[in-house]
Amino acid sequence: MLIDVVTIFPGIIKAPIQESLLKKAQDKGKVKIRVHDLRKYTHDRHRTVDDKPYGGGAGMLMKPEPFFECLEDIRKKSGPHKKKEPKGWVVLMDPRGRPFNQKTAKRLAGKKRLIFLTGHYEGIDQRVHDHLVDEEISIGDFVTMGGEVPALCVMEAVIRLLPGILGNTESVKDESFQSNMLEYPQYTRPREYRGWTVPEILLSGNHRDVDLWRRHEARKITKKRRPDLLKSQKSKII
Amino acid sequence: MLIDVVTIFPGIIKAPIQESLLKKAQDKGKVKIRVHDLRKYTHDRHRTVDDKPYGGGAGMLMKPEPFFECLEDIRKKSGPHKKKEPKGWVVLMDPRGRPFNQKTAKRLAGKKRLIFLTGHYEGIDQRVHDHLVDEEISIGDFVTMGGEVPALCVMEAVIRLLPGILGNTESVKDESFQSNMLEYPQYTRPREYRGWTVPEILLSGNHRDVDLWRRHEARKITKKRRPDLLKSQKSKII
Repeated sequence: MLIDVVTIFPGIIKAPIQESLLKKAQDKGKVKIRVHDLRKYTHDRHRTVDDKPYGGGAGMLMKPEPFFECLEDIRKKSGPHKKKEPKGWVVLMDPRGRPFNQKTAKRLAGKKRLIFLTGHYEGIDQRVHDHLVDEEISIGDFVTMGGEVPALCVMEAVIRLLPGILGNTESVKDESFQSNMLEYPQYTRPREYRGWTVPEILLSGNHRDVDLWRRHEARKITKKRRPDLLKSQKSKII
Repeated sequence: MLIDVVTIFPGIIKAPIQESLLKKAQDKGKVKIRVHDLRKYTHDRHRTVDDKPYGGGAGMLMKPEPFFECLEDIRKKSGPHKKKEPKGWVVLMDPRGRPFNQKTAKRLAGKKRLIFLTGHYEGIDQRVHDHLVDEEISIGDFVTMGGEVPALCVMEAVIRLLPGILGNTESVKDESFQSNMLEYPQYTRPREYRGWTVPEILLSGNHRDVDLWRRHEARKITKKRRPDLLKSQKSKII
């Protein structure tokens, strides 16, 4: 997979992708991530990327031209994936987008090429939304300082689903949201810590009992904290 | 505000907080962010933070001891906020947590001291959840590689709400989710770009018409993309 990220703060992306599984995924050749400084695609001395909104209002908007020119440049130097998906799938991180979830992560994990556009200030000129973007994604109903950190969330969620990234494929199968159920409580050594002990059943060695207990606990915590997930599960079965 | 972040990948946090508004907020003295390497609180040669889960299962769990010892150390050197909130408010980033939204961001912006715990692998020993954490927060119904990037999302959302961070306080007032309504389309110069023009009404200079158009467009896009937001608005009014 080839991923391009367009940003006015390359540092927000460049350091985190050198850590953890994101680094490992690149080292293994599963994904190539390129970070592009949007200011390179401006033509004035101050490298201006923002301007006032038409119709008035507080704050500044991001201008359309640098995005269009940057995308054209990225597509020119796309390299290995040029033939299959010359244009890539352009994702704009935006609070107005479709709320991101595990299902979307899976769908995006099937793409060969993703291009993330990230914005700052009050937003981006609507013509970028209308004519450059394939999909707008919102990370949730809250407002961050810019689209970079949300893009990192999406990148992490997508890249860890690529084949060969996680050590154990079961790790993906069991986890939260995969089954519309939150995860059961887990314990590791020591058996007793500061007077708090591990539930006896987990030490029993009886796999059937452990499995039943885990399902019960998973359902209990889901019912308590996220009854909405159980509802959506029912509607799927019926 | 004092923020402590506990992580096994300090680099994921350290670089992004030196950019954009997060840097500005620290330069202005509005927030102090400290990053703590969890591995410092291990006692073996390999600085092991993980171990196998009791009861079996795929993947590794994060051990409880380093978290407890790290928190004790952090609280010792807390400094200026020691008197008011000696323990801080401990937030664990976890897919089982309460889904994060703008309301939670506002509530957290009222705290004097936040401590973020971030996990990796299959999760963290349940005793950390039960005895160390004040609030578990989920960034959304998807799974990232670890809690660091989700913690950055929460930090950005919270810190930008602190007084004096955004240039214009109206910017906070108008934005998505503040009013359970997505934002209207915005345009900046040029008036015409590649044949795509700015809607005439925004050039009219008639503020009342512009305002009406914007409300109309905001409602239209919200109705199309996020009817759930309009519903929750109604239920609030009634």
